[in-house]
Amino acid sequence: MAIVVQKYGGSSVADAGKIRNVARRVSESFSKGNKVVVVVSAMGDTTDDLIELANKINPSPEPREMDLLLSTGEIVSSTLLAMALHAMGFSAVALSGPQAGITTDSAFSRARITGIEPKRIVKELSKGNIVIIAGFQGLTSDNDITTLGRGGSDTTAVAIAASLKAKICEIYTDVEGVYTADPRLVPEAQKLNEIGYEEMLEMATSGARVLHHRSVELGQVYNMPILVASSMVDKPGTIIQGGENMEQRNKVRGIAHDMDVAKITVGGVPDRPGIAAAIFMPLAKAGISVDTIVQNASANNITDLTFTITRKDVAKAMEIIRPVAKQIGARECLNDSKLGKVSIIGTGMQNAPGYAAKMFQTLYAQNINIQLITTSEIRITCIIAEDKVKEAVKALHKAFDLDKG
Amino acid sequence: MAIVVQKYGGSSVADAGKIRNVARRVSESFSKGNKVVVVVSAMGDTTDDLIELANKINPSPEPREMDLLLSTGEIVSSTLLAMALHAMGFSAVALSGPQAGITTDSAFSRARITGIEPKRIVKELSKGNIVIIAGFQGLTSDNDITTLGRGGSDTTAVAIAASLKAKICEIYTDVEGVYTADPRLVPEAQKLNEIGYEEMLEMATSGARVLHHRSVELGQVYNMPILVASSMVDKPGTIIQGGENMEQRNKVRGIAHDMDVAKITVGGVPDRPGIAAAIFMPLAKAGISVDTIVQNASANNITDLTFTITRKDVAKAMEIIRPVAKQIGARECLNDSKLGKVSIIGTGMQNAPGYAAKMFQTLYAQNINIQLITTSEIRITCIIAEDKVKEAVKALHKAFDLDKG
Repeated sequence: MAIVVQKYGGSSVADAGKIRNVARRVSESFSKGNKVVVVVSAMGDTTDDLIELANKINPSPEPREMDLLLSTGEIVSSTLLAMALHAMGFSAVALSGPQAGITTDSAFSRARITGIEPKRIVKELSKGNIVIIAGFQGLTSDNDITTLGRGGSDTTAVAIAASLKAKICEIYTDVEGVYTADPRLVPEAQKLNEIGYEEMLEMATSGARVLHHRSVELGQVYNMPILVASSMVDKPGTIIQGGENMEQRNKVRGIAHDMDVAKITVGGVPDRPGIAAAIFMPLAKAGISVDTIVQNASANNITDLTFTITRKDVAKAMEIIRPVAKQIGARECLNDSKLGKVSIIGTGMQNAPGYAAKMFQTLYAQNINIQLITTSEIRITCIIAEDKVKEAVKALHKAFDLDKG
Repeated sequence: MAIVVQKYGGSSVADAGKIRNVARRVSESFSKGNKVVVVVSAMGDTTDDLIELANKINPSPEPREMDLLLSTGEIVSSTLLAMALHAMGFSAVALSGPQAGITTDSAFSRARITGIEPKRIVKELSKGNIVIIAGFQGLTSDNDITTLGRGGSDTTAVAIAASLKAKICEIYTDVEGVYTADPRLVPEAQKLNEIGYEEMLEMATSGARVLHHRSVELGQVYNMPILVASSMVDKPGTIIQGGENMEQRNKVRGIAHDMDVAKITVGGVPDRPGIAAAIFMPLAKAGISVDTIVQNASANNITDLTFTITRKDVAKAMEIIRPVAKQIGARECLNDSKLGKVSIIGTGMQNAPGYAAKMFQTLYAQNINIQLITTSEIRITCIIAEDKVKEAVKALHKAFDLDKG
């Protein structure tokens, strides 16, 4: 019998009725003869409510206690889903992350899975049980509870699927799959039936909110096929998987965007070793995540260093950077918070230079100024004004023939 | 340094403000130089709310999943109390029951503690931490989460205190201590400064709601002094402890009562071996807890068998008993649901027969009819009409000079 791992997000288990709906879907997969393991997130706004409650008591709670607190949310939804299955006459057992054998490092609030010992899961499956696992959590070697941070339950699901050598990991969510662009921006956006891990990874890190990049990375490492589909309607969704698909090489697969981009430029910096470290070490220590970094080489050993961060970190980053800029003899330190980014993504793109030219031409035709350009093997990203992002996504979607499905 | 274990009930941690109040009290004991371990119940109505949520999904949820669900309530309050202590500048660490090393049997929803391995607690105390433990829960040898049933957090606290050889186990609650009678019935009731384990045990099992009898039993076994006091006001409370106190022997210490008593009488039963088993085995199998059992010997080998249960079990018990009564040739099967019981409690009472006579005389003077009488070494109990209980408690309280403190 094949093992299928399903994951349901918070909005899919937000109340008793929705939990019963999920139980029905789970039971259908079980009744088809699969061994079924289900990973669930916390119900609806539970996690936010717990954070709010904690903040009432302590504005900066210790991460260790915060993780122990938040881990209860997924335990609640896992037990309720098991109860719903029992009410329908199915055998099911709910397991916390530690009971499911998920071990992590001890980076509270953003722990990484270090291993899965699926003994208990295998035992319960062999007894004919549907196994429901609380997502987003694990246990350190010191017997402390951790949470996995953003996208944690997706990561749990893919890791469990890999450890069980499951046939597939199905992620059920509030969208119907991966689209060529955000359908809220581009009504003509098409759902992709299939996409490769690398393309999906670039989509995820370039702003597409469907899956967290950690779960896609894990899927790629273990070559675990991941289905993204709606938990509400019965439609096929998108399969993320490996393997070459000749037809789809050298083709733009999707347009990703991110509205939350801010840029800081340290201008007129003497170009000598150690400058980049002097700027980025203190940012890293302050927990500020830097996205794109561009250094413009220049004459006279004077250079401009530009990087992007999320908007909420601008004030703190400027506070850290200003004294550093002064110390290293920079001319100026500027920031612009009203930026966004738009990316075109597709395997093999870098070997077909026509795509970059077409992207820049399309933006130029819309009178959109490009502030920064970065590329990877399968992605070209332009940083532009935030209020031009929507226009840019629509124009690129059309220019690369994605409207036609 | 002495170890002090404190326990706070659900109403003491019902909201952020109350949690801060508890944190202040805990920190005061710590600042006096004690090593402090705190056991907490779930906030306010959390447990009832979780039960309601579960029942919406499944009217008869599996006990295993129910226990995993309910265990989250105490984890939430333990983490929040730790956060409140952090906000006040104290080092504290929250532990779930399993993390605290509490192991139980696998009787879900009413598990018994089988052992405590306090290694982690000792380690955290030695680091200077205040240790907050989620009450009411433990872990089976199969790595499943259990809850301890009614009075579970009190039991956790006393068991932890015993395993740590603490100086005292302090139970903070919404009453100021143990009274000579329920102050809501008898305004003249006096708070006892001290009471023995056995007396307290009889008070608990005879209807006084201050402490669950399991925690008192544990205290007695390990000779652990238990303080019962208010979590809201700074008043001395009542110490429950062992040791002879000559002055208080042969003295009624308190009047306990219970308004929720129903009686079933199987009348005209042929008096032969096996009759009692035939009646009580099926009740036990149905999970109906029988309190008092009285069998009236009679002439002609015909006897009446009477027992008491709580009111909610009457319908089910009658359904079970009627066919049994018929089968064993009983004449009739009657029930009366409008009963209560009143008890006088005091060590050594049985050796001073004047007390029983005085009790019966007092009830007679109030024109209260006694339906059943049972006695133990330190208790005399009368079953009477429910609507006479209040009158009986007041009259006995006065008759045994308890009004005078």
